[in-house]
Amino acid sequence: MTTRTRRRRGGGSADRRARASAPVDIVPYITRQIPVFEVLGEDGLALIEHNADRILEEIGIEFRGDPEALDLWRQAGADVQGERVRMPKGLCRQLIQDHAPREFTQIARNPERNVQIGGNNTVFAPAYGSPFVRDLDQGRRYATIEDFRNFVKLAYMTPSIHHSGGTICEPVDLPVNKRHFDMVYSHMKYSDKPFMGSVTHPERAQDTVEMAKILFGERWLNPETGEPNTAVINLINANSPMTFDETMLGAAKVYARNNQACIISPFILAGAMSPVTVAGTATQTLAEAMAGMAFCQLVKPGAPVVFGSFASSMSMQSGAPTFGTPEPALVLYVMANLARRLGVPFRSGGSLTASKIPDAQAATESANTLLPTTLAGVNFVLHAAGWLEGGLAMGYEKFILDTDQTGMMQTLLKGVDLSENGQAMDAIHEVGPGSHYLGCSHTQANFQTAFYRSTVADNNSFEQWDADGSLEAAQRANARWKKLLAEYAAPELDPAVDAALVAWMDQRKAEFPDSNIS
Amino acid sequence: MTTRTRRRRGGGSADRRARASAPVDIVPYITRQIPVFEVLGEDGLALIEHNADRILEEIGIEFRGDPEALDLWRQAGADVQGERVRMPKGLCRQLIQDHAPREFTQIARNPERNVQIGGNNTVFAPAYGSPFVRDLDQGRRYATIEDFRNFVKLAYMTPSIHHSGGTICEPVDLPVNKRHFDMVYSHMKYSDKPFMGSVTHPERAQDTVEMAKILFGERWLNPETGEPNTAVINLINANSPMTFDETMLGAAKVYARNNQACIISPFILAGAMSPVTVAGTATQTLAEAMAGMAFCQLVKPGAPVVFGSFASSMSMQSGAPTFGTPEPALVLYVMANLARRLGVPFRSGGSLTASKIPDAQAATESANTLLPTTLAGVNFVLHAAGWLEGGLAMGYEKFILDTDQTGMMQTLLKGVDLSENGQAMDAIHEVGPGSHYLGCSHTQANFQTAFYRSTVADNNSFEQWDADGSLEAAQRANARWKKLLAEYAAPELDPAVDAALVAWMDQRKAEFPDSNIS
Repeated sequence: MTTRTRRRRGGGSADRRARASAPVDIVPYITRQIPVFEVLGEDGLALIEHNADRILEEIGIEFRGDPEALDLWRQAGADVQGERVRMPKGLCRQLIQDHAPREFTQIARNPERNVQIGGNNTVFAPAYGSPFVRDLDQGRRYATIEDFRNFVKLAYMTPSIHHSGGTICEPVDLPVNKRHFDMVYSHMKYSDKPFMGSVTHPERAQDTVEMAKILFGERWLNPETGEPNTAVINLINANSPMTFDETMLGAAKVYARNNQACIISPFILAGAMSPVTVAGTATQTLAEAMAGMAFCQLVKPGAPVVFGSFASSMSMQSGAPTFGTPEPALVLYVMANLARRLGVPFRSGGSLTASKIPDAQAATESANTLLPTTLAGVNFVLHAAGWLEGGLAMGYEKFILDTDQTGMMQTLLKGVDLSENGQAMDAIHEVGPGSHYLGCSHTQANFQTAFYRSTVADNNSFEQWDADGSLEAAQRANARWKKLLAEYAAPELDPAVDAALVAWMDQRKAEFPDSNIS
Repeated sequence: MTTRTRRRRGGGSADRRARASAPVDIVPYITRQIPVFEVLGEDGLALIEHNADRILEEIGIEFRGDPEALDLWRQAGADVQGERVRMPKGLCRQLIQDHAPREFTQIARNPERNVQIGGNNTVFAPAYGSPFVRDLDQGRRYATIEDFRNFVKLAYMTPSIHHSGGTICEPVDLPVNKRHFDMVYSHMKYSDKPFMGSVTHPERAQDTVEMAKILFGERWLNPETGEPNTAVINLINANSPMTFDETMLGAAKVYARNNQACIISPFILAGAMSPVTVAGTATQTLAEAMAGMAFCQLVKPGAPVVFGSFASSMSMQSGAPTFGTPEPALVLYVMANLARRLGVPFRSGGSLTASKIPDAQAATESANTLLPTTLAGVNFVLHAAGWLEGGLAMGYEKFILDTDQTGMMQTLLKGVDLSENGQAMDAIHEVGPGSHYLGCSHTQANFQTAFYRSTVADNNSFEQWDADGSLEAAQRANARWKKLLAEYAAPELDPAVDAALVAWMDQRKAEFPDSNIS
């Protein structure tokens, strides 16, 4: 790792003061205490980097429908033919390493919940983008703004979900061209955790920025830098293979110019959108992500970016995406490693599954994604909770099952306590051979915090479980999300700010007719 | 790691010739191509080793009901008071490092299925010891010898289960004092994979040895060493904390003297049988395992041993064992590391769960055990498939779901293919921006082997899944185990050997009356 000096983006001294008074039960994000897991050595990683450079130089990346983007690349020294941009070896890496922050702070409405993205930190956010929702009572149905608000509330109430996310589900009961207002407002109103902005049109990105300015008020600008704090983080997908489209480029430009964060994510179904091999998929992902992140630095040097990777493998029988299989896990470990070498925060993983329901398949595939996510050292984990059906449905019970697991990962990342209390030699001496530890003083002293307590597991005897109704995990999860929603209390929002947000939205909404076209 | 020279136990040149002709679809065991994951550094590991030495020296271990064991320890220089044995610092480690093999071969009836235990190798074996079985059709019921045979057959038919296991379930329809004959015979008759012996009485251990002599015939003795090949591996549990009982010591002596392998496994419910902390549990486990493995070396220097660890954490609400939680995973990573430092093969992990049914809880907890098992570098994985209800029930559907996962782990451990074909640069050049890889020549060439194919996942669209009956994973698993059993064909066993085994068993069974007492 080089020792380049970069600005660490902070939320300013006011934020630091506010955080100092945080109650002990807020864990704004996780700082890992265990090593990362890596599957490739120096030779393998260098080979993939070399091949990615070859892609950028020999094949190039298409930047479609955006003449300004092509101009920026031309000025930077790239070879631009039509919409194809071929970057000289090292150009993208140089732009990223010269300008992009290694890590940055995303501010939250509640400063105690500001998140540090990058480094040894992990942030869990809900799933993103599904048109459907599912629960045990009503089955599968189109999502509404009420569902959206419900998930914002559930995420707010879950200590191991550090972020409110973005398009948790599509509120299809609202017009396509205006629903972004209601989504962004719901994050602002029903949670005080950090959130994501709209990326479906450059104008909607600008709307997100304007609403963030109203919400954060004087906290919008960082007095130390004179620039905006990073208040939203935004999902910019590549159109793999090797293409960025006009919408994504337009949104990325708005956010970068306002110092808001862009997650540049090649979203890849290996076998269709990348080669059928792990190394080939990793190589293409690296090339695409570097091109996107470098583009953001051309738009505004220093704009916060996140290296994103989303890889699933294709069923070679049906062409369907599959999740929780070994190959995407290997891609994930490799990409996290490549992001660390590049020196940028990394986004990947989650609790992914192709299953339609919260059954054993969903649970296994999710665990086979979330645990690699955790061990690989992912910094920003989108889709950490709720995802079903390859992302087409957001599950209420799945959300509860998944957040039990994000809680476990939070504990796992604390690692092994090697203090005297952790070593427990007094206890071992006190108890001795053939006895038990149930009543010993060390056990009594550590009773409350000894082990992670699952919110949904049934560890009782068969007889007790049978007497309790022989419930499966999803049924217990059903009871839990209902209990949480019943107990929800909104975090206080300054009524003047709330009124200003509503007034601004109403005015903007009145400027154009409803549309469900795009 | 020191460079001590130790004999590597091999199965002899006949075995090597036989293996050379193995059909390509037999993977007798896995040799990992990816690194192991470790959570502690040198300082932490050395601290735990130091504390374990203190336990052995200051507190000691009880060897109960076995005066011969106490004599052996006395002669080795230990301080023996009553049944309490205190070992001078370094004695156990020295005995193990001077004599115990770093890895060894367990021979199988089919020499192509011999397993190498230790080093970079992983062997998956079915679950062990449950009195009940469960399937979707009949629910939970006492296990019978027919269930036992069914699981031997299913394990035989599963490529990623490398070992036939031992007491897969208790055949409670047979008398307690004779059922070991039928279990051992079932492994010999219905499978040609390696298996485990009886440990519930020294005489039953001896019976196992005698039956192995009949089965293996001239392969029983290794002509290169003049000693028996290792033909059975056997589970010797410590009676934690810090105690070994008469039965286990008696069985261990029989096996060690015959050069058969002993897995010395502290079986620990943390909070009851060890301290409530990860480091404390690891320390006690290390002390107990070292004492047991050193004891085997006193009985017969060079006897193959495996460092075993089984740790679950206790629910602090109910006292029930819990599985798949973060703390046992941390213990597992630490123990695997300590075993490597000691230089002996390691057994732990599996697909563990407290759930009564193959639901999301079972799947998550199992994945949260099996993936750490795989990444930690466990050499011998008991309970890799079938386990339900904290080990009280063996599940037919659970077995199928778990073996889908052992298959995935087998693929994961192959790591990343960095060959030219793996790099896939030709494919990336051929396809280029904005196209797809579905029909490209690289995809066509790698179609068959590109990605792991799940045996039970449903990756279809919601609509297709719905049309197929909206099945959950366990229902698909139900169909699969029935299909496998219907297709089972026994591996050929020399009729003369079979007749000799049956005759010997009949004679032995006639020597004493049926009993269900012990």
